[in-house]
Amino acid sequence: MKSKLTLIKTEGTGRRCEFEKVHGTVQTPAFMNVATCGAIKGALSALDLKEIKCQIMLSNTYHLHVRPGDELVKEMGGLHEFTRWQGPILTDSGGFQVFSLAKLRKIQEEGVTFNSHVDGRKIFMGPEESMQIQSNLGSTIAMAFDECVENPAKYQYAKESCKRTVRWLQRCKAEMDRLNSLPDTINKKQLLFGINQGCTFEDLRIENMKEIAELDLDGYAIGGLAVGEPKEDMYRVISAVEPYMPKDKIRYLMGVGTPGNIIEGVYRGVDIFDCVMPSRNARHGHLNTWSGIININNKKYEKDNQPIDPQCDCPTCRNFSRSYIRHLFKAKEMLAMRLCVMHNLYFYNTLMEKIREALDNGNYQEFHDKYVDLLDTRI
Amino acid sequence: MKSKLTLIKTEGTGRRCEFEKVHGTVQTPAFMNVATCGAIKGALSALDLKEIKCQIMLSNTYHLHVRPGDELVKEMGGLHEFTRWQGPILTDSGGFQVFSLAKLRKIQEEGVTFNSHVDGRKIFMGPEESMQIQSNLGSTIAMAFDECVENPAKYQYAKESCKRTVRWLQRCKAEMDRLNSLPDTINKKQLLFGINQGCTFEDLRIENMKEIAELDLDGYAIGGLAVGEPKEDMYRVISAVEPYMPKDKIRYLMGVGTPGNIIEGVYRGVDIFDCVMPSRNARHGHLNTWSGIININNKKYEKDNQPIDPQCDCPTCRNFSRSYIRHLFKAKEMLAMRLCVMHNLYFYNTLMEKIREALDNGNYQEFHDKYVDLLDTRI
Repeated sequence: MKSKLTLIKTEGTGRRCEFEKVHGTVQTPAFMNVATCGAIKGALSALDLKEIKCQIMLSNTYHLHVRPGDELVKEMGGLHEFTRWQGPILTDSGGFQVFSLAKLRKIQEEGVTFNSHVDGRKIFMGPEESMQIQSNLGSTIAMAFDECVENPAKYQYAKESCKRTVRWLQRCKAEMDRLNSLPDTINKKQLLFGINQGCTFEDLRIENMKEIAELDLDGYAIGGLAVGEPKEDMYRVISAVEPYMPKDKIRYLMGVGTPGNIIEGVYRGVDIFDCVMPSRNARHGHLNTWSGIININNKKYEKDNQPIDPQCDCPTCRNFSRSYIRHLFKAKEMLAMRLCVMHNLYFYNTLMEKIREALDNGNYQEFHDKYVDLLDTRI
Repeated sequence: MKSKLTLIKTEGTGRRCEFEKVHGTVQTPAFMNVATCGAIKGALSALDLKEIKCQIMLSNTYHLHVRPGDELVKEMGGLHEFTRWQGPILTDSGGFQVFSLAKLRKIQEEGVTFNSHVDGRKIFMGPEESMQIQSNLGSTIAMAFDECVENPAKYQYAKESCKRTVRWLQRCKAEMDRLNSLPDTINKKQLLFGINQGCTFEDLRIENMKEIAELDLDGYAIGGLAVGEPKEDMYRVISAVEPYMPKDKIRYLMGVGTPGNIIEGVYRGVDIFDCVMPSRNARHGHLNTWSGIININNKKYEKDNQPIDPQCDCPTCRNFSRSYIRHLFKAKEMLAMRLCVMHNLYFYNTLMEKIREALDNGNYQEFHDKYVDLLDTRI
């Protein structure tokens, strides 16, 4: 068996699990820290990730395929060797970036032809190519190649796209099985997660989930959310599709989100999350605290000798003041971004720790009610 | 007594010393790591400085006066509290920046009026103002306010400027004594170093050195070099002025330089150095190694799994490959700069360590001959 999910405790639909696999065990609910090109934006290295309680790193197939190239990464020993992150790594399929970043794309049954956002060269990516790239990267978890339909979508297009994504998923599975059996594959226990699509149409979502559940994959993701729809739609879709997600498989809500979104996602039965928001916000000085979100550029922090969050014990808060960090932003010193990304990611990883504690202690409802709005409030 | 210099060993003109003062002892020859605005460019914090064997940090009076303001820094407890660097800090006088960065400056006997390079506002700085700012910053060592005449200079102008700089130095000393005796001064043992000027005219340099030596200051710097003159001129001036520098005072060659320049400077009797070159070069991928300077952007490093320098044990070389670092530059990841600045500063601090060892062991001539050209060679 390539992986094992142990359900430790539940509260309502919420789940507290342990997910064992190659490259180590992840305690869930967990947040994956995003290293798009193999490095966390804001000058964080794999060594820093340990300090900020990261359990699992996420890297982007599309970006690494375009630059430096997945074959180069394979030659260098795979993404673990290349980045020096020794824990689990999830790679996305490239699908989302192909549909959001690349230009002049053309979708056919075989796959997608598009132009690289870096040098404009024409690239073809289909299910097999995506699996081959992810196999070359040697990640712990590979994501299926899917079409992420933009919001709002036409019902008929969404329906046809879903059908094609299921056919792509079957091809992904076959290709992954083949790759995992090759002698020179870096990670022969690479896992494959399927992705539920169907835009905001509940019937499409459910039908699609039923179909992909039958393929008995290593985990299941809900994709195509947090792409501009109101959060009520997001929550409605999660709750509609959740009963059809296998209970014995790990569940991943892609690209989500704010602390409130995550608290709500866990509440509705999700195990793992990822989002660029905490590091992107940090680079602009928008910082998560246990009292809400502060903007460190605000004049009121000019002579404030307190840490970003007096309740936080991250490497930044243990050492530096709001006043100093605000000065670093004004002086355009890169250190500002680094200190703030460290803080925000530590905050997210600590949030997940507290979520797990609340589930362990059976008081997640209370935790949810206390924090779901508070943590997303700008103060 | 505010400081103590112990001459441990000499070889020719070269000196191996120990410099004791408030904020700790510095083993010299030493290189000061430049944190212009209170942070090392490349996202290094004061905590990182320990890891790269930094003994003494340098910050810029002009930059900190303009932003965030020295009075704010004083309110925050001084530069040590603000940046969290607990070792010695030298602040320059602001003179060099006033003459190189600021616009529309006007020099009078009282001091210099100029426009801030940040917001254009009119600022006046004279010897007293420079001392007050440095006292507010609470640095270990304050530098005298001087005029740094541009190269090449007219003899007559250089001569008059030197005379004025001596008069300014007398005012600096009086003001520093006054400030150190005030009850709310952060560092009442702040040291004052005088700066030798005189462009490339040996007679002016010597006359000026004799005059400032009489003031019995805590240390002496050679300023106004490495401003575009050929390195032969720099070495000639150092050797001309060195016999007139007090042997019992620490000697600082300002803004110098390449590893070869430093090896030559030590050879000619200099104790401490500073330069933005190692961190600036690092941010462009130009990296110091014990075999010469490499450009990590070079195609030949694309699949090179070795560290930047196989002989180096810095945090970067202990963990990351040339291939990964080259990729980070291509992908415009800030981590590239951070890893390279860590490496280059570690290289400089290790160079000083090896220089001290060679002096301790009485084989500095051999060390000099082996490395003086080699380390500056692009390979």
